[in-house]
Parts: sequence; structure tokens; C-alpha cells
Amino acid sequence: MANQVCLVVVLFLCLLCVESKYMMYNTSAGIVPGKINVHLVPHSHDDVGWLKTVDQYYVGSNNSIQVACVQNVLDSLIPALVADKNRKFIYVEQAFFQRWWRDQSEEVQNVVKQLVNSGQLELINGGMCMHDEAAPHYIDMIDQTTLGHRYIKEQFNVTPRIGWQIDPFGHSAVQAYLLSAEVGFDFLFFARIDYQDRAKRINEKTLEVVWRASKSLGSSAQIMTGISPKNYEPPSDNFYFEVGDTSPIVQDDMNLFDYNVPERVNDFVSAAIAQANITRTNHIMWTMGTDFKYQYAHTWFRQMDKFIHYVNQDGRVNALYSTPSMYIDAKYAANESWPLKTDDFFPYADRENAYWTGYFTSRPALKGYVRTMSAYYLAARQLEFFKGRNEVGLSTDSLADALALVQHHDAVSGTEKQHVADDYAKRLSIGYTEAEKVVAASLACLTEFSKNGCVNPITNFQQCPLLNISYCPPSEVDLSSGKSLVVVVYNPLGWKREDIIRIPVINENVTVKDSKGKVIESQLLPLLKDSMSLRNSYSTAYLGKSTNVTPSYWLAFSASVPPLGFNTYIISSAKQAASHSGMRTVYKSQISQNDTIEVGPGNLKLLYSGKRAKLMRYINSKTSVNKLLEQSYIYYRGDDGSKDLQPSGAYIFRPNGTYPIEPEGQLSFTILRGPLLDEVHQRINPWIYQVTRVYKGKDHAEIEFTVGPIPIDDGIGKEVVTQITSNMISNKTFYTDSSGRDFIERIRDYRKDWNLEVNQPIAGNYYPVNLGIYMKDNSSELSILVDRSVGGSSIADGQLELMLHRRLVADDNRGVSEALNETVCVFDKCEGLTIIGKYYLRIDPVGEAAKWRRSFGQEIYSPFLLAFTEQDGDHWANSHLATYSAMDTTYVLPDNVALITLQELDSGKVLLRLAHLYEIEEDTDLSVMSSVELKKVFPKKKISKVTEMNLSANQERAVMEKKRLVWRVEGSSKEQPTAVRGSPVDPAKLVVELAPMEIRTFVIEFYSERYEMLYELISIREC
Amino acid sequence: MANQVCLVVVLFLCLLCVESKYMMYNTSAGIVPGKINVHLVPHSHDDVGWLKTVDQYYVGSNNSIQVACVQNVLDSLIPALVADKNRKFIYVEQAFFQRWWRDQSEEVQNVVKQLVNSGQLELINGGMCMHDEAAPHYIDMIDQTTLGHRYIKEQFNVTPRIGWQIDPFGHSAVQAYLLSAEVGFDFLFFARIDYQDRAKRINEKTLEVVWRASKSLGSSAQIMTGISPKNYEPPSDNFYFEVGDTSPIVQDDMNLFDYNVPERVNDFVSAAIAQANITRTNHIMWTMGTDFKYQYAHTWFRQMDKFIHYVNQDGRVNALYSTPSMYIDAKYAANESWPLKTDDFFPYADRENAYWTGYFTSRPALKGYVRTMSAYYLAARQLEFFKGRNEVGLSTDSLADALALVQHHDAVSGTEKQHVADDYAKRLSIGYTEAEKVVAASLACLTEFSKNGCVNPITNFQQCPLLNISYCPPSEVDLSSGKSLVVVVYNPLGWKREDIIRIPVINENVTVKDSKGKVIESQLLPLLKDSMSLRNSYSTAYLGKSTNVTPSYWLAFSASVPPLGFNTYIISSAKQAASHSGMRTVYKSQISQNDTIEVGPGNLKLLYSGKRAKLMRYINSKTSVNKLLEQSYIYYRGDDGSKDLQPSGAYIFRPNGTYPIEPEGQLSFTILRGPLLDEVHQRINPWIYQVTRVYKGKDHAEIEFTVGPIPIDDGIGKEVVTQITSNMISNKTFYTDSSGRDFIERIRDYRKDWNLEVNQPIAGNYYPVNLGIYMKDNSSELSILVDRSVGGSSIADGQLELMLHRRLVADDNRGVSEALNETVCVFDKCEGLTIIGKYYLRIDPVGEAAKWRRSFGQEIYSPFLLAFTEQDGDHWANSHLATYSAMDTTYVLPDNVALITLQELDSGKVLLRLAHLYEIEEDTDLSVMSSVELKKVFPKKKISKVTEMNLSANQERAVMEKKRLVWRVEGSSKEQPTAVRGSPVDPAKLVVELAPMEIRTFVIEFYSERYEMLYELISIREC
Repeated sequence: MANQVCLVVVLFLCLLCVESKYMMYNTSAGIVPGKINVHLVPHSHDDVGWLKTVDQYYVGSNNSIQVACVQNVLDSLIPALVADKNRKFIYVEQAFFQRWWRDQSEEVQNVVKQLVNSGQLELINGGMCMHDEAAPHYIDMIDQTTLGHRYIKEQFNVTPRIGWQIDPFGHSAVQAYLLSAEVGFDFLFFARIDYQDRAKRINEKTLEVVWRASKSLGSSAQIMTGISPKNYEPPSDNFYFEVGDTSPIVQDDMNLFDYNVPERVNDFVSAAIAQANITRTNHIMWTMGTDFKYQYAHTWFRQMDKFIHYVNQDGRVNALYSTPSMYIDAKYAANESWPLKTDDFFPYADRENAYWTGYFTSRPALKGYVRTMSAYYLAARQLEFFKGRNEVGLSTDSLADALALVQHHDAVSGTEKQHVADDYAKRLSIGYTEAEKVVAASLACLTEFSKNGCVNPITNFQQCPLLNISYCPPSEVDLSSGKSLVVVVYNPLGWKREDIIRIPVINENVTVKDSKGKVIESQLLPLLKDSMSLRNSYSTAYLGKSTNVTPSYWLAFSASVPPLGFNTYIISSAKQAASHSGMRTVYKSQISQNDTIEVGPGNLKLLYSGKRAKLMRYINSKTSVNKLLEQSYIYYRGDDGSKDLQPSGAYIFRPNGTYPIEPEGQLSFTILRGPLLDEVHQRINPWIYQVTRVYKGKDHAEIEFTVGPIPIDDGIGKEVVTQITSNMISNKTFYTDSSGRDFIERIRDYRKDWNLEVNQPIAGNYYPVNLGIYMKDNSSELSILVDRSVGGSSIADGQLELMLHRRLVADDNRGVSEALNETVCVFDKCEGLTIIGKYYLRIDPVGEAAKWRRSFGQEIYSPFLLAFTEQDGDHWANSHLATYSAMDTTYVLPDNVALITLQELDSGKVLLRLAHLYEIEEDTDLSVMSSVELKKVFPKKKISKVTEMNLSANQERAVMEKKRLVWRVEGSSKEQPTAVRGSPVDPAKLVVELAPMEIRTFVIEFYSERYEMLYELISIREC
Repeated sequence: MANQVCLVVVLFLCLLCVESKYMMYNTSAGIVPGKINVHLVPHSHDDVGWLKTVDQYYVGSNNSIQVACVQNVLDSLIPALVADKNRKFIYVEQAFFQRWWRDQSEEVQNVVKQLVNSGQLELINGGMCMHDEAAPHYIDMIDQTTLGHRYIKEQFNVTPRIGWQIDPFGHSAVQAYLLSAEVGFDFLFFARIDYQDRAKRINEKTLEVVWRASKSLGSSAQIMTGISPKNYEPPSDNFYFEVGDTSPIVQDDMNLFDYNVPERVNDFVSAAIAQANITRTNHIMWTMGTDFKYQYAHTWFRQMDKFIHYVNQDGRVNALYSTPSMYIDAKYAANESWPLKTDDFFPYADRENAYWTGYFTSRPALKGYVRTMSAYYLAARQLEFFKGRNEVGLSTDSLADALALVQHHDAVSGTEKQHVADDYAKRLSIGYTEAEKVVAASLACLTEFSKNGCVNPITNFQQCPLLNISYCPPSEVDLSSGKSLVVVVYNPLGWKREDIIRIPVINENVTVKDSKGKVIESQLLPLLKDSMSLRNSYSTAYLGKSTNVTPSYWLAFSASVPPLGFNTYIISSAKQAASHSGMRTVYKSQISQNDTIEVGPGNLKLLYSGKRAKLMRYINSKTSVNKLLEQSYIYYRGDDGSKDLQPSGAYIFRPNGTYPIEPEGQLSFTILRGPLLDEVHQRINPWIYQVTRVYKGKDHAEIEFTVGPIPIDDGIGKEVVTQITSNMISNKTFYTDSSGRDFIERIRDYRKDWNLEVNQPIAGNYYPVNLGIYMKDNSSELSILVDRSVGGSSIADGQLELMLHRRLVADDNRGVSEALNETVCVFDKCEGLTIIGKYYLRIDPVGEAAKWRRSFGQEIYSPFLLAFTEQDGDHWANSHLATYSAMDTTYVLPDNVALITLQELDSGKVLLRLAHLYEIEEDTDLSVMSSVELKKVFPKKKISKVTEMNLSANQERAVMEKKRLVWRVEGSSKEQPTAVRGSPVDPAKLVVELAPMEIRTFVIEFYSERYEMLYELISIREC
């Protein structure tokens, strides 16, 4: 029986046999005061998918693309560490580590546990992946980190101390204050910052800083941060020791030719001194590894053993095996003061004309899918908890895992190869399919409500993941025969909520009843041919077969749903039809020159020029906002690299000219009007279609764009942008969110930290937008919220722009080696990818916009979840629970608090995260301390224990705070007053306070069900 | 303390822990009767120098040239074998293995010993390198094999069973019958044979044969031989598993994507069936590895574990870990009859127009140096033995090691990169320098003869390794002041011998006295300007400084030396000078048209045409041979590959046109005449110079050629050939030796084994020449003997040709990636390499030529060894032993026997090899059983024990013979009578019989010196 893994088990005995007379290297060096200490940190940077899929990387298949096998890294690492207790290694990506760990025998696991325990093997960063910092939403960042951190805690009883974001292409404030400080890291390290910034920092010895990234949380959430002087690799080309690397090995065998110890020691000492010269304290760190190295770990350790041995014999500097933890402890012990850094590290350029701002938008369909799945996962976990998590069987875990992987910095970023992007989508789809069943089962349980809990529910709920392409088989049923369609609308927010639901139907005469059987207002909108053709081709592309049912209408109605609960609507055939949206086609020729078309059934009116077929003005009668407003499309021509080999590509945005996109031929647009909403349909050009919706009850416009296939027959890559133009005096200033959370001020052609040399006036002003972008002047704020992460900017005063889609013809020479040229194939016929997305636009009086951005922003993130089933006749409400809230029916969460995690853990305990949505000074009413009554959040259960945890829930918050290192910041004037935070939760009151921007994480334990029944009886008696 | 090696020690315990539930593969399969058994033979082919030097390959430096680190192979192999006792590995190249072994702790060595003992790790082939089979001399092949085999025996007490010549470019008869059968191998395996031959063998299932390569020894020295159906790699591109290889791994983890076990099992089974279809018996062997693989052995074994597991689960074929030994035992057990193969496998073409016959000549200077060192090593070992081998201090071991390495099939073959060729030369030079001191010390001991043995001899003997470029500082001393030059002439042959010695001197008036003080005949020849300029530039190139002494003459005299002994000659200033060679320059214009110039002071006369300045006729008055004979130079234009990407290169000879080389301008030659020899100096063209010597006492002509720098300014590579043209009716037939031993009949454009399709009428008829080449007709035989290995042929009847030098401009696409363009630099000024070499030519009556070829051939191999010292005055003989023979003074070896090894082993025992020089039926007188009296070979010692060994001296011959497998040969008619062999040595008589072509190897033990003294006393008393 082959059993290579058990190898490791007995290796521990090896530690006894140090008395060999051969090849004995003294690697025992610790820190030596007064010398330059070179901390050698062995590591492997293992992308959780990039040129190969995560599994291909793990098992080492598809090596013709990239020689990478993480299984080899870990297989070979363990014996190498066991062989010498001084050797160290850090491992980062839990997606790989878990794959490997699951395959190991108990004996090997025990060996590894000892290695982790002794600090030889340190698990750092500790999320499933090294997430991107531009494209992921902070909730996804938290989730994927939690998934990794809790696994590490369970398996090893340790908590990672180090943030290790060495590769992401820019660094977000949220990464610093939330995903580092709030997680309990002592140190955040990364490598990629703007080349101009780095040059200045090298010059001023400011590569290591205290990063205070949150205005609201200030020094209470700051993190000591190190920036590599170059990259995350060895200090020069001379120190790579992979099998196959070409650095000179240390040849110390005098019996052989080419003995080179003196030369190699000199190389080492020179590199150390060079780095020490730009570093504060006498500790420097060498990242000994790079992408997918240590596939035979022995090769690296053998050389490092020799270096440590001979360099320390030489004595000019001191070399030691180390980890970032050892490094940062040494830094801390030095009691130095450090420069302060605020805000973030966006955008990133690695050299002139190479701004990594293209990936903010790259693969917009994947980015959209990720956001949709993220929201679905949040809702599905709630429903999974309500139903009760199965120990076996279906769960949301597979979706959790897929979502975690796709946060990787070459995943949702859009910078992977096409087949890898497909792999992520496939994983999401598989995860979704399982979660969908969990959701359906939970809703069935809840609707079939029984005192005995959920036993074999019979209702078969279906859902519509392809609703965005107008494809929803459950709603596309013929109701004329008397069947009704039951629509259960679930609201994952902690607030009561109303929203318009739109579903495709085939019948014209349908009626919508609420859960009480009352007919409610509804509106039919014709499904126009542009949508239909997209529906038909894309549903065929996704499903591999064409559909034979063709809906004719969108049925719209308003749903009102309690917090963390659902409401039910019944759609059935009726003689009286719903309101038809009037259809009106406006031709240029028929409109007089000053003709103005007003759109919008409520307070908000959009005024269009009939002649120009364009938006002209935004008027809200309620808020008295009345602004000139234009909206248009342009494209940037993607540079082909012919000038200086720097094309625009998956990573890099390198525009080469701005081209307006004007409607071709006769201008026309179509307006659909109705009681609930008006729609303005515009064909912008043959490959851009736009629908603008103005709802009666909403004070924003919703713009749905359909972009693609972007033509590249002319050999020119194009990056499609929508521009919103007002006459606001925005003074170069605009604001973009950090990973969906804090808004950061951006000033065009300006950086706070250094004197910017502007060489890319467009690309260099792009920032990631996850939640939204806004600008303001003295009177008003113009805000745009997005449905996925995109890149955005304000290239001219009064104007905001979003890059919606990119199709390029050249690779940008950052390794992916593919042009970003997404296609979709229907039966072998392929064409460029068309994407559909939305953004939301609103103008508020200055100072009043945060409410919409924050509260509606949360609604965009967490839309209603729709589930469909059919019934014969009309008696659903008789046999089913039609409306439900998990919370106390009298209770809703405060407007400034969102429930961002509600999840039953394997242990049966519940993970709860509450997030204050407002920054300090953002809103007069809502930027205040808020509180949540846990008893009312869980009215049906009796809380036995609430433990406040750190953000990733792998340690108690109090323990984390106690361990936190306190760093000195240069210049006392930069010290802030201590940030406001919610008090500890009183175990009796169980009220959670939340200060602005605070996120608090709890593990909640309940009394058992038996106890709960008893409790219920007592409660009744007490009443 | 880092101690990666001790890792392995405790791994043995691992074998206990097979109960892991994870990744358990059943690799325990043995042979299954009735199924196709796929013997997976894991191996790494580790060239002992090729693109990198041996040490670079070992430590893994210079990886930019080739990713290869043998240390990694062996480091990673041991744990992989320990992890699963079913896994096997064969290791071949002892040069690497010894480097590694020396570095291991005793614990690791013990583990490895157990692996070797259990057969998991099998050491096969077992020489220091996998020697080439074309360029090495059989004595070198024996020596390098012995060095490896004895080390293996000492360390592991095992004897390799398998000849594994997988890479050499053609296979010699000597490899089969001597280096395989006589070594005791059970099987010889290789991969490279002519593509036409292979096609036929595949078709006829004759890839496995009984190879009976020696006419003389017949079935007593035959070897079962396997030829790979393709190469020495896995059966298809799909089965390579190095880190970085791109074959699909077996993905058997159902939790991950891309599970592919069924596909991979199908791949395996298909490949197995395909090979089984062309193989006899149901055993097939897969060579699982290739050049420098298993740098992380785990990667291969992990995949092979899976294949064995799943393929055997599938059941269509049976896969097992195996070795060639297991394979051949299975073949043997099948009791099959096998085809018979005779002769050899030269030349080798891997495809049309790609004859690997260029390397027979590539790097002629290196080939010459190797031959010179080989002979020196033979002599030096004798002298080392006479002196007594030191346990510490100087020895011939370093030269032994260097010579062993350079026998590698990319070393003396000339197919390595230039820097690697330089490395071999450097090693030879270092080895020589040490051996030179051993020789000097031994001669000093012997000449300062004392009863007390050799204690601190004072004589400082110098030697002249650069005599070939007329550079010999010890002889270039001014004798006019009264000093004498003592020349000790050592004869390593077992025969008494006379030969002309030539040394440069600066004085004109010198006299030579023999050891008795008698003036002997000598001759001064002027050192002509062509030699001088070469001397000056090359001595500067080699020594890094120019010489300031300039000799004016060659002093020639005849030395007569006893067997295994020396004689002494004293050269001193004299009023009477030696005979001056008359100098006579013959100009074309001064010669009448029928002018004939006769050259030669003895029986042999060469007749030249004065007008044409060319050889015309060969006359020997003693043998009555009188033949028309011409000699000329041509060059082949090396194909540049423009037709079909197959240029002429280091490996491949691909001529593109034949161009005669005629003297340019006015024809002239110079004749030097004297009593001992005549010299004919001819400048053939600006880069070819030739001296033909005819000695008074010799019946052959000696041709010394100086070729180079071959001009390539015209962009054309040139391969320079000398042609000897007679009017003999040679009938397409000629004979070339096999590795310096048996002569094999060659027929132009014909192969015995298949119907040759001729596409390269020149290159395809080239054969390696180590000893000589000859042709014959009814009346005479024309023989040429060479001083190093070269390529030769007979492209036209009556003509023989030798390729002397090659300089090419293109690489031939076989991996070396350099054009064979050797240069020599003097202070940064480089030009093409000039070589000096000799060949010897003689025409005998038919049937009488073997004596010269064999006996003089041995003299060419083992020239006199000259040592010089100075003395004041003329009293050397008074204080020194002037003449010496190690043998009984009344004894010489028979004319048909050579002593090819006489070497003191570390143990103090002596290794003796005696070789019968004649084949059966080669010479009427000498192709007979001969005998050697050991007592007379060692007259001064008392033999206590003589043990006859196999050829490589790692086992007793009797044991070897007992183990020998007896194979059945197809067709009874092919059975021969048992070959004649010498009888076992009677321990009392101590006479060794040798049958034709027999080589017998003995380990001889002597009574101790104390005993010897006693013995001597008794002997004296008995007298």
C-alpha cells in the first residue's frame, strides 16, 4: 500500500538525530541586537485560480499553462519543516490548505498540528483566498475570511496574526480597518502600491506605516502596515531556488568544482544592506518565495540553510528563519514611531501609463453574478437557519465555498483566463443550485408552518436565477386554465420593505392578490423584441437548449414584506386585466424642436428632449431638486500597445482616445407608462440598449443597460462608459466607496500622499465603485449606486462616469496572456458577451443624500428573493402561512443598522453580524449610536449566551483587544480622540449598541428546544 | 542544526503505518500470468556532463542551461522509496551516486543499504558513467566500469545485473560481449538503433535478441539484449510526471473537478496493448523517466501509484513496479527462444539523412587527450604499484576518476557543450598532474633502488605532456655548460621493445649514451617554422604565458626497454654532434616530369612524385609488397540544414558535397633524411601540414597531420578527411575495430540485418575507428592504425578514409545547441582549433597483417613514458639503477598477450588483467592459446592467492558463470561449438592460459613483506 503521507508522521523522530557529521548547517539564529537582522520568510503565493483553476493548481494538472501544483508544495513542505525545527513557513490560502488537509491521515494531521503549534508553520491571512480589494463587497470579504479563520481555529486552535495581501492590485481602507484591525491582525503586509508613491516612501523610509483607514473608527481600528520595497519575491534575481530556477546555488562542497560561498555571502550581505538603508529599525524582511514556489520545498530550504549558516559565520549581518509575526514583534520591540497613513491605496500603477484600473470593470457579467450570489447567500443562510441546518444533506456550504473562492484577486477582479472565469461561474452555479434547494425547502417549511417543526415539506418552490434575461419558467405558466401562481417574496433585510416586483408572464389577463386575497394594483409591460432576442439566445447559451414558451409581458406589482420574513402574492387569471402600460413611440420627426417629454408617475420626473431623444433634466417635486442632467455613452479606445508595449487589458486601463457613442440613424425611443412605473426604452446604438425606469414610489431613476456585443471587427478594443453630466461645480472632487462601505474623497489628478505626476489623466483617476459614487456642490449631491463592482470616475467637473463593459484585443502583459475578449456561444456560434446591468441615480439636496445611498444601497445589495409555486384554485392562504417575520412582529431594525450575517454554525450556535451603515458626520439623524434588541430579533428562541467575537469570529473580541499591539504614531498632533463604540452587551438586556461604521459580530447560543417549549409555556402563563 | 538527510533515517518506521484511510493505493502487484504485465521501471537518465558539467548537474547550478540537479533526484528518491516498499528505482551513473553517497550520514547510508538490499533501489550498469560505445577504447570502458562496480560491491556487497546503455548512439560488439557478458550482466538494454533496423524489428518482433558479438568467444560471451521500441522514455507523451511536466495527472479525487481515472486507465491500457503487440512474451517494460527526471521523485511515484492501483482494478492489463532485473527474470521464466544477433549496431541513424557518425571524430583534440591519458594511467598504475600505493597522499585515483567521467557518451564522444568539454579536459589535467607526481616518485624510487624500499626519494623527474606541440622544458636545457639530461624511458608493455624517441633540444652538439655509457646513434632534425609557430601559440594558450626558450632541433634516438621496466639514456654536450638530417627542399620546377623521390632508410620505401609533390607508391623490400598508393585530403562541406533542418553537427555527419584539397600555389615539400628516419614535410594548404616519417627499423609509415584552423569565414562548415587510395579490389568491403578490439567486416551500402535503403552514401558508411581500419584483396592488406578514435570508411573500392577534424557552423538539433566550432585563444585572440595527430599505414601480404595491427597497435596505445632529470656530469649509472624490469628478467609476455591492468588496490591486493590480442583465425601463429606465468610476472613477490574475477572484478568469475542465465536461440543451426577458453589457474603452477580474444581478470594476493623477505632468504639459500 502506497502511503506517502504517513511519511511525515515519523519524521518527528528526526529531530533527535542532529548529530550527523554531514551537511550540518547552523540555522538556529535568532534576532541579534545591533545587527541588521534579515528575516527570511519562506512562502508560496498560491493563487486560488488565475491561469489555471483552483483544482488544477491544487493537483498540478494543466501544467502546460503554468507549472503549479499546490499539493506538491504542501506535501514537500512538511518533511522539510520536520527536518529542522528552525525552518519556518507561512501558508496563506485556505482553499488550498483545506483541500490538502482533508486528504491527510490523522498522523500527518498531528504532525502538522505540532508544526502550527510550534510556530514553524504559521497560517496567516487565513481566508479561503487572498481576496481582491477592489471588486469584492465587504460582506463577501468578511464571509470568506470567516470561513478560513474559523476552520483554522477549529483545526488548530490558532488565530492568524498577519494580513498578507501581497498581490492585490491596490489596497482598500476596508481591508485595513475591517479585514485587518477588526479581525485582530497585528500587521498587514502587501507589495503593490503606486510606483510614484513607492519611490517617495523608499526615499523617506515610510514604507512601514500605521494605517488609520476609517474616519469613524479612527485609532481604534488602525493597523501597522508594511509595504514591500519591491514585490513579494526574494530581494534580487539571485535568490530563487525552485527546482528549475536559475539563481546560483550556494556551492559549498570543496570537493566539487565552482565553490562559491564567499561570492554568495557577499550577494546576500549587499542585498541586506541595501534594504536596511531604506527601512526603519534594523529588521528587514525577505519574502523568500513567489507564485507557486516550494513545489519541492527542500530546494529552497537547502539553500536558505546554507545562507543562514555562512552569512552568520561571516557576521556582517544576521540572517534568520522568520515569519511576519516574528518580524513584527521585533519591530514592535524596537519602540519606534511610525508615519500615519489614512484613506487607501487606489489606484495602483506599477509604472508610467500602467494604471491597474481596468480590472475594476473587467468581466462585468462575472462581477454581477458574484454580487447576485453574495446577496442570495446572505438570504439563503437566514432561511437555512430558520429551517434548521441539517447535519447531513443540502446546505449553503457549497455556495459559501464558491463565493469565497471567487473573491480571489484574480477571480472577481476579472483578471483570470477565460476557462478559469468559467470555473468560478460553474462553482457558483453548483453552489447556487444547492442553496436554491435549501431556500425552497426552508420556504416550504415556513409556509407549511407546523408546531412540530419542519418535517418533509411538500411544497415545491421554484426560483428564477435567469430573471435578468427575462427567463423565468415558473412564472411563464398558462394561468388561463385556472391555476394560480403563488409568489413568495422573501425580504432578507431587517427592515420592512416595499418594492416593485417584475416577472414575465404569458397571459394578458392576470390579477395579483395579496396574502389576504385582496386584488392589488399591477401593471403589464410588453416584453419588447430586444429583450426577447437576448432572452432566447442567452437562455439557449446557458441551458444548452432553446425554450419553447414565450412570455409576452412583464407583470409588475408592489410587494410589501416584513423584516427577515416573507409575504405571499397570488397571480391568477382574471377577466379584468392589470393596467396596461401605454406604449408610445416617439419619433424625432414628429416632435417639435422644443418638445419635452416628462417621464415618471411619482415625485420624480425625468425630462427628455424628444428631438434629441435624450435626458435633459431631473426634477423631484418633493425635494425641490431641479437639475439639468444628461446621460450619454462613450467608449475609450483600448490602447493596443504599439507605442510602448502597454496595451489596455484585463488589469490595465490604457485609453487611447475618447469616442462619443451617438444613436445611429433616426433617433427614436419608446416610452411605456403605467400606474407603478414608467419605462424609457432607448436603442443607443446597435449594441447598446437602455431602459430607464421611474417608479411611482421611488425618488431615484433606475437605468438598465444592455451592452454588447462590443464590436471589435475593426481590431480596436473598446471600453464602454456611461457619463452622467450635470452643471454642478464639483471642483475636481468626487467620492467612491471603499469595498461597499466608507466613502472616500477623490480629487482628480491629485494624491494626498505625494505630488502626483499625471501621465494618464483618465485611467489615473479611476477608482473602484462597489456601492456608489457621488459628487456634490453647494446645493446638491448627485449619487449613483451600482449593482456590481465597476470602475468609475469624474473626469470633468459636474460629471460622473462608470465603465460598464470592456472588450479588448490585446493582452496587457501582466501574465494572464489573453486578451479580455469575452464571448458567448450558442451552438458553436460565438459572439461578444452582452451584459445587462443597472445603476441607480438620484439627486438630493446637499447633506441629505446619505440616507438613500446607505439604505437603498442595502436594498440593492439584498433584493427580494422570489419563490414560485403553482396551486389549483385559490386557497393558498387557507393551508399555508402567507406572511412571516423571523423577528418580533412589532420590531424592525433601526434604519442605520443592517443584519449582514445570520447563519447557523455547525455547532448549532448562530453567527450574527450587525453593521452600522453610516459613517460619522454622514447624516444628521443616522450617524448616531444605534441599538438592536436581540431578544426581539430572536423572539421564538431563548438566548442562553451571547459572545462578542472579532470580525472573523475566530476569537472573543475582548481577547483580541487585549492582545492588540499599540503602535506609536509620528507627531502627536495626528492623535485622535478615541472612537465611539458600542458598549459590551449586557447579558440580561441583550441590547447591541452600534456606533457609526461599527460592525459587531456575535456567536449566540440558545437554550435547547425542550427548554424553549418550557419557556414558551411559562411565557403564556405569565401573560 | 539543519539536517535534511537524517529525514530518511526514521522513514523506515513509516512502513508500519499503512493503515491510513487516506490515499491508499494498492501498488503490491507482482507478475500475473496470462495477462500483459507492464513493468514500470522508474529511472532518471543523468548524463555525466553534457550541457552542464558533471558537478553542475550534481548540485543543480547553471540551471539556465538545463534544469537538472541530481542531488535533488537522490535526495527526494530515498523518502519516496521508503514510503512504499513496492516502489522501485534503478540508479545508473555512479559518478553522481558516489558524489551523493559521500555526503550522506551513516544513518542515511544504512537506509539506502536496506533499499539496495531489498531490491527497491537497484544499481545497474554501475560504471562511473554510461560510457559511449564508439569513441572509448575498451581498456577505458573496463576501467570506468570496474571503478563503479567495485565501489558498489564495497559499499553494498551487490553486483549489477543489468547493462543499461539507453542513450549511446550506436552499440559496439565489445559492449555486448565484454562489458556485458564478461561483466556478468544478465541483460543489456538500450534504445538507439537505426530507424530502418528498428522498423524491421518492430515488424518482426525481434527487438529482443541474443547478441553473440564475439566471433572468438561465441556463445560463451553472448548477452540477452533488449532494444526499446522507441526510446528510453515513457510510452507516450502522456506519462511524464516531473514537476513541470504537462502530462495529465491521474485526478482521482471525486471532490475536485476534472476526475479522469477512466480516461487515464484507457490511455495506459492502450499503450500497453500497443507495445505488447510488438513484443514476445506477455512482459513489456516501460522506462518511466528520462533525462534528469525525478528531481522531486514523489511526483512520479504518486502518479504511478495511482496507475498501478486503477489499472489493476480495471484488470485488462497488469501494471507493476519493476526493474530490468525483474523484467528479465520474467522473460527468462517464459522459456522463449530468441533471435540471434551478431556484429554490432553501427552506424546509428535516427531518421533519414541523420547518421550519427560525425561524433566518431568530433573534438579530435579531446579524443586524443583521452587516449594519451588512458595510456598514461595504465603506465602510472604500474609504477604506483611498483612503488607501493600510499594510503594517503598522491595517487592515480584522480586521473582514474577523470578518465572514467570522460568515457561518458557525451564526453569523449565530443557531443557536449564547449564549457563541458573544457571541464573534462581540466579534470584530466588535474588528474594527470597528480599521476605525474606518482610516476615521478615511483621512478625516483626505482632508480634510487634500495633494499629498504622507497623512502623519500630525492630525484626530481619531470615529464613532457606537451611534447606533441614540441614543448618540453626538461629537454630544452642548455647542455653546453656540462650538465647532462637523464632520460628514463619506461615501457608499460609486457614485451621488450624498441622505439625511436624524439625530444626537442636547443644544442646542436649533443650525444646520447645508453645506460652502459655507450654512445648510441642519434639524429638531429631541424624544428621547422611551422612546428615552431604552433608550439609558441599553443604553449601560450595552455600555460597562459609565452616561453622564452626556443629549441632548434628534434633529437631522435632509438631506445630499447625491457618489459614493464625502464632503461636510461643520457644526453650530454659533445664535440661530435649527432647525425644531422640532411635538409632538402624539392621544388616542382626543379624536378623533371618523371622524377621519383624515394624516402625511407630501411626496408620500407615510399615513392613520391616530385612534380606532383605526392605519394605514389609503397614498396617493402622485405615483404615484397609493391603497391601504387596515393594519399590526399578532401573536405566534406557540412550541410547547413537549409534543405530539411538537418545540418551536420556534433553528432551528425551530413555531408553536402566533396571538395578536394590541393596544395595552393607552387607545390613543394621538404624531405629530411637521416640514419634513423626520413621525414617528408608537406604543406598541403594553408591549414593542413603533414609530416610522413619512415623509420629505419619499422615497416610502416607514420603520418603526422596538423589540421587547422579550418576556415569558416565562408560560412561553410568543413569536415576534413584524409584518403588513402590504392588500386586494390576491395569489393566494397573493409574492416573496423570494435572499441579497439575485434575487427568487424563492413560492406559499403549494406547491412546484414536488413535491406538498407541508402540515403546517405557517405555518412551512412562511416564507422568508428579506435584501433584501425583495413581492407584487403587477394594479395595484400592495407591497414591504418590510429592514435585516437576517429570516424573512417571506404567510400570507393581500394580506398580508405579517416575523418580527422571537423569545424561546423550549425547545431544539428540533438540538444547540444551549439555548433561544433572549437577555438583556441591566446590572450583573447581566438582562432579555430588546430589539431595534431598521427596515423600509421602499412601494406602486408594478405593474411600477414594482423601481427602489425595487433602488436604495433598495442604499442601505439602504450607509448614509452619519458621522464627527465638533469645531472651535473656523467655519473648517473653509478648512483642509480639504470635499467629495470618488474618481471623476471628472463621473461616477456607472449606476443599475443597484453597486460592491460596492473594496479594495486586499496586493500593491497593487486588487480591484473591479461588480454589475448588476437581473434580466432586472425593469425596463423598467434590466434592460439597462450599462457602467462604469473610467478615470472611477479618475481619479487610471493603470490599467496589468485582469484579469477569477472571483467569488472566485483565477483569471482566462477560465481558469475554459475549465475549466468542460459538463453535459447531460435534455429538450432545457429548454435556454435563452445568457445575455447583458458583453464582455471592452478594455484601451484600459477600459469594463466588465454584463448583468442580472452581477457582474464585476477585479484592477486601476496604474502606480506616480512614473509617476502623470508622467502627471499630461502630462495637465496636454495640457490
